[in-house]
Amino acid sequence: MEYPSKLVEQAVEEISKLPGIGKKSALRLVLHLLKQPDSQTFSLTESLKDLRSNIKYCSICHIIADTEDCTCKTPSRDLTTICVVEDTPDVMAIRNTGQYNGMFHVLGGRISPMDGIGPENIRIDSLIERVKSSDSQVNEIILALSSTMEGDTTSFYITKMLKDTKVKVSTIARGIPVGGELEFADEVTLGRSIATRTLFSAE
Amino acid sequence: MEYPSKLVEQAVEEISKLPGIGKKSALRLVLHLLKQPDSQTFSLTESLKDLRSNIKYCSICHIIADTEDCTCKTPSRDLTTICVVEDTPDVMAIRNTGQYNGMFHVLGGRISPMDGIGPENIRIDSLIERVKSSDSQVNEIILALSSTMEGDTTSFYITKMLKDTKVKVSTIARGIPVGGELEFADEVTLGRSIATRTLFSAE
Repeated sequence: MEYPSKLVEQAVEEISKLPGIGKKSALRLVLHLLKQPDSQTFSLTESLKDLRSNIKYCSICHIIADTEDCTCKTPSRDLTTICVVEDTPDVMAIRNTGQYNGMFHVLGGRISPMDGIGPENIRIDSLIERVKSSDSQVNEIILALSSTMEGDTTSFYITKMLKDTKVKVSTIARGIPVGGELEFADEVTLGRSIATRTLFSAE
Repeated sequence: MEYPSKLVEQAVEEISKLPGIGKKSALRLVLHLLKQPDSQTFSLTESLKDLRSNIKYCSICHIIADTEDCTCKTPSRDLTTICVVEDTPDVMAIRNTGQYNGMFHVLGGRISPMDGIGPENIRIDSLIERVKSSDSQVNEIILALSSTMEGDTTSFYITKMLKDTKVKVSTIARGIPVGGELEFADEVTLGRSIATRTLFSAE
């Protein structure tokens, strides 16, 4: 495509490097910004620069945070449980349920030999250290990883590494989503939901 | 949603002001940028700042350009024809066809009483001036506006304003797209394509 201006071309190039945004969408965004007051573009660029320059990762749970010491160890939390997730959005999703008050551990990915990601490339060592450290009160690890081959591989690896500790390792339930109809569920999920059935309480 | 960091929240807020990007997509973009080298974020913000600060509009045809004098009046162009469009992407689309070598005029919108946009809010006056000026060689105006009520209103208005000049006013053909099947065409388009049929050349 021939652009009417070098500046537009440059901005389109940069925006279309983002995932899910092609050149046409990028051009639409550029023309939108040009129609809005300057201030919108400047506050956008400022917030992105700020983000990239000042963001920190908690040194304990590796969640994205404003400081290197997030609230993961406040006494109001349940310090006996660590929920292991792949990335920060998973933490947000679990926090939003209001069902979990324990600590988190963000691995930053999952073991995937196909992509050249081994156990040493994600933050498994730091999880093991956290669990084995002398002041640890942890007695349960909840694995909340994707239900894919890579996620399962990662879960197996972590379980194996924690074999010689007394820590209980559990995984989130796989089954029919709440509100879901049986006839539309795939066989593997339905099979797993029968194998891991739970006691029904009528109270 | 509860964000793990104020910086992330701020960036998500700013990005989700863009059209077609919701909070979830914005968060995905933010987390993507955080995984890439700093340089990607900084060259993105620099190019957007540059764009917003330095972009110019050609004082003659109103196309977005790097200088106030775009190439719209170079002698290699056909200076007898002006193609009137709503916005810059239309110029790019028409240039990409390789079928048109004349000048352009970007209105910057279309007459739309519903949205409070009258003829004085778009660049019709400057088009009329351009056509009527003493050194004008223009003998044809091609209206390439959207085929909507607003587009048609704008076309009628421009035609009326140019009534007392000798300039020919034409509009781009409406009809069945090349490669399109008749049975899927809507009645209005098909009707228009019959009413404005052209001679078939077998050469």
